[in-house]
Amino acid sequence: MKDNYVIGIDFGTESGRVMLVRVADGEEIAWSVVPYPNGVMDRQLPCGTPLGHDWALQDPRDYITVLKEGVPKVMREAGITAGQVLGIGTDFTACTILPTLRDGTPLATLPQYASNPHAWVKLWKHHAAQPEAVRINEIGAARNEPVMRMYNGRYSSEWFFSKVLQIVDEAPEIYAAAERIVEAADWIVWQMTGELRPNECTAGYKDMWTKGVGYPSKEFFAALDPRLENVVAGKLSTEFYLLGSKAGGLTPQMAALTGLNAGTPVAVGNIDAHVAVPACGVVKPGVLCMIMGTSLCHMLMANEKHFVEGVAGVVEDGIVPGFWGYEAGQAAVGDIYAWFFRAFGANPDEVTAKAAQLQPGQSGLVALDWWNGNRSVLMDADLTGLILGMTLGTQPEEIYRALIEATAFGTYTVIKAFEKKGVPIDQLVACGGLPQKSPLVMQIFADVTNRAIHLPKSLQASGLGAAMHGAVAAGVYKDIAEAASKMAGLQDLCYKPNAGAHEVYEKLYAEYITLHDYFGRGANDAMKRLKALKG
Amino acid sequence: MKDNYVIGIDFGTESGRVMLVRVADGEEIAWSVVPYPNGVMDRQLPCGTPLGHDWALQDPRDYITVLKEGVPKVMREAGITAGQVLGIGTDFTACTILPTLRDGTPLATLPQYASNPHAWVKLWKHHAAQPEAVRINEIGAARNEPVMRMYNGRYSSEWFFSKVLQIVDEAPEIYAAAERIVEAADWIVWQMTGELRPNECTAGYKDMWTKGVGYPSKEFFAALDPRLENVVAGKLSTEFYLLGSKAGGLTPQMAALTGLNAGTPVAVGNIDAHVAVPACGVVKPGVLCMIMGTSLCHMLMANEKHFVEGVAGVVEDGIVPGFWGYEAGQAAVGDIYAWFFRAFGANPDEVTAKAAQLQPGQSGLVALDWWNGNRSVLMDADLTGLILGMTLGTQPEEIYRALIEATAFGTYTVIKAFEKKGVPIDQLVACGGLPQKSPLVMQIFADVTNRAIHLPKSLQASGLGAAMHGAVAAGVYKDIAEAASKMAGLQDLCYKPNAGAHEVYEKLYAEYITLHDYFGRGANDAMKRLKALKG
Repeated sequence: MKDNYVIGIDFGTESGRVMLVRVADGEEIAWSVVPYPNGVMDRQLPCGTPLGHDWALQDPRDYITVLKEGVPKVMREAGITAGQVLGIGTDFTACTILPTLRDGTPLATLPQYASNPHAWVKLWKHHAAQPEAVRINEIGAARNEPVMRMYNGRYSSEWFFSKVLQIVDEAPEIYAAAERIVEAADWIVWQMTGELRPNECTAGYKDMWTKGVGYPSKEFFAALDPRLENVVAGKLSTEFYLLGSKAGGLTPQMAALTGLNAGTPVAVGNIDAHVAVPACGVVKPGVLCMIMGTSLCHMLMANEKHFVEGVAGVVEDGIVPGFWGYEAGQAAVGDIYAWFFRAFGANPDEVTAKAAQLQPGQSGLVALDWWNGNRSVLMDADLTGLILGMTLGTQPEEIYRALIEATAFGTYTVIKAFEKKGVPIDQLVACGGLPQKSPLVMQIFADVTNRAIHLPKSLQASGLGAAMHGAVAAGVYKDIAEAASKMAGLQDLCYKPNAGAHEVYEKLYAEYITLHDYFGRGANDAMKRLKALKG
Repeated sequence: MKDNYVIGIDFGTESGRVMLVRVADGEEIAWSVVPYPNGVMDRQLPCGTPLGHDWALQDPRDYITVLKEGVPKVMREAGITAGQVLGIGTDFTACTILPTLRDGTPLATLPQYASNPHAWVKLWKHHAAQPEAVRINEIGAARNEPVMRMYNGRYSSEWFFSKVLQIVDEAPEIYAAAERIVEAADWIVWQMTGELRPNECTAGYKDMWTKGVGYPSKEFFAALDPRLENVVAGKLSTEFYLLGSKAGGLTPQMAALTGLNAGTPVAVGNIDAHVAVPACGVVKPGVLCMIMGTSLCHMLMANEKHFVEGVAGVVEDGIVPGFWGYEAGQAAVGDIYAWFFRAFGANPDEVTAKAAQLQPGQSGLVALDWWNGNRSVLMDADLTGLILGMTLGTQPEEIYRALIEATAFGTYTVIKAFEKKGVPIDQLVACGGLPQKSPLVMQIFADVTNRAIHLPKSLQASGLGAAMHGAVAAGVYKDIAEAASKMAGLQDLCYKPNAGAHEVYEKLYAEYITLHDYFGRGANDAMKRLKALKG
């Protein structure tokens, strides 16, 4: 085992990150970041076709480029041979989807479709399917479709059928030509193995598939649009595979492309946030895993299914097989801090140092962290930010700290929503970019939530998590829990809550939640009216 | 008349401004700004005695320095002789008060008192008498004192008896030694003429004196503090003089000091904001005069007395004899803009140019302009600022514009309060620093209030207004209206409201007033609780 390795590949928004990991202990041996040659296309296609407002596309060939360039690079850097790589795992942004032929050929790569934007990969943050999401939610509610409950009645414009319905609405010829419409997470594994073995995770969280139930009825799809009636039978997979299971072995072509051995086991696809959870050592209920970056994902497991306010999805086996997996989140966290430094033209180091000197409550400020709407618990994209309490003496560092506190209050609200439904949260683990670079943010989150926050050894947990699933698919470990016990672990560093600070934060939180409910639950819809006036 | 002049002296917060004005047409011939050598003392006395939080003192000798340096300078510059100066008028910040001996000697100038802060001039913005103001308002309300009505039930910590009561509370020996306690506006005229002839304006707006009624009863003062029972008989003037009347002639000593002729007529004292009104050509009801700088004073006249919400004082003959004078105001206007540029580290020219390009409503923002509390109409110093509607795309210029709009909404609220009580406002005239330097601010005020805003020829209206009162005191003009018709006038420049912009602003104002009432009238006292938590 000592000289054996697994590869994890994290397909992100701007680039793919290939990580070579020692299978015995999870040590990261080498990594390579390969930017997507076409990046995120939000203005035009490579051929010049302009894109509408809120569009975000990708080129599926860019994912292959990551394999072709990134894998040989880490092998070379580490100086190992193909035979030492026991397995491969991947993770992907979601919901990112593309239309293909029956054999997996993306329509975007066919000359007759290449100039049609709908032939391309719709990236997770493609937000142009908002009207379709509204229609799905209205019809879903009117029909009382059981699946809507899994998404708390709010199916996102980012998700599978919103995007599919947009294709139907705007490019029926592409919809007709699409023999398959697949998650990019599954497509890349299909390309690597020659087998379309889709994973249960994207299917459950994004694609309206429920374990033991399947998809909603034909009648529901027909109600959305008659052309969608047979979408499941005609264009979708109906069999899904447990996370960590083996999709197949690397094809000879893919082996040639990457320099690995043909037949190397490849795990089924997974989502970036979900795969990070076991990489944080979290494989059981009661531990909230926070992936903290520009936005924040809350991942939690429990033994039972509960319907918790603001939870975007509750999926059986959705994070770690054997448990119900819950996903909640905040639409902007690091993005708000970045806005602050940009808008205020402030020096981050200087302002952060001053903000760290402030005591809780000292600024007299409280903010609502809705710069990008509210994902959990209100699930309302039209809400906006608020800062209250300014005086002529208010300093930039006080505003920065109030923004950090507001984002922590957002997480505290999510924790309380879980607790209200009897889903316990005993411990917090955080990974992602923020824990790496902002001790002040971490301490405030600990003080506000009154919970210790642990950090995993690998803060860029997705790559490691993908590799761990590769190890499970290869049979090195019997399941992801065993893989986690060997390959993942926590740092000694832990942010412990300060009782005195928490006491003050409870008072500030009382103000936050009053404003949260006043502006977020209909008493005063000023934010929506102002947004509408904006045009 | 062509070669005759009057002198106006505007005693401001940091300096005194001496202005030589041609009496025939109000032309400003020469001016001189003399900074007070001791400035505003808010940390320590010249001898080193430290001052408490919120203190603001001045040295009365500094006012004499203004006369001694400023008057000869303008005479020299203009090349005129003492015989050509027909009269002198002054105006002062208010309520600025000092304790003196019976002959006018300030206690601060006596060695035995000089190290006691309470012996010095308490400047208008000395805010350390807040507990005393609270006591006055509580006892005034409990006793249902008629005079409280003139101040809308809110007697300010800045005003005469709050400051006197603080002396009683904290330095009874100074209170005992004070044979007179006077407005600085009256003290400087006393020094110039040898006559203590106090004016009706400060008496009415700040000192609880009502024309035809006098001061409140001994019982009221005794209820505030037994030592205050005989304050009126023992330490105050009881006879007051109409604005524009002659206090006396310049004393020989003062003539020697200034280079003017002994006996030159000197007008009774006046307040800087009030004296500006006729200098803006406003001598009749229906025209709202706005003195716009760091804060904003609204001055208005009417034929009748009304109790208007948020009006800090309604005084007979208080601005122009013959009318009821109303004073309202916003505690911070230019100060909020200055805060923005300081906090955001923004380039004023660049941000202003971008803000001017925005359409009303385009930012999606609305703010409450309470960075320094709310003076009118809520009269609540503990309210704080709010900005609502931020997204990740919000730009600094959008916030700047929202702050300007919020201050204009503040003025609109004052106008509506007057209208509600049947006090008409047909026209706006603005003077002060803001009309001089910010066309964007003026246009937004016009668009929000849906009223044309005229500017006077002299935007630094106080000095001219003081000189005009000097001309009336000298008998050159029969009253201030005649003086205004000759010496004051409007510029051709006028900001006209844009109907389309106003329509959008009515929608934004609806949001503003909802937030105003929610946070300002007790539904959610978050601002006060946060301020209290701040400690």
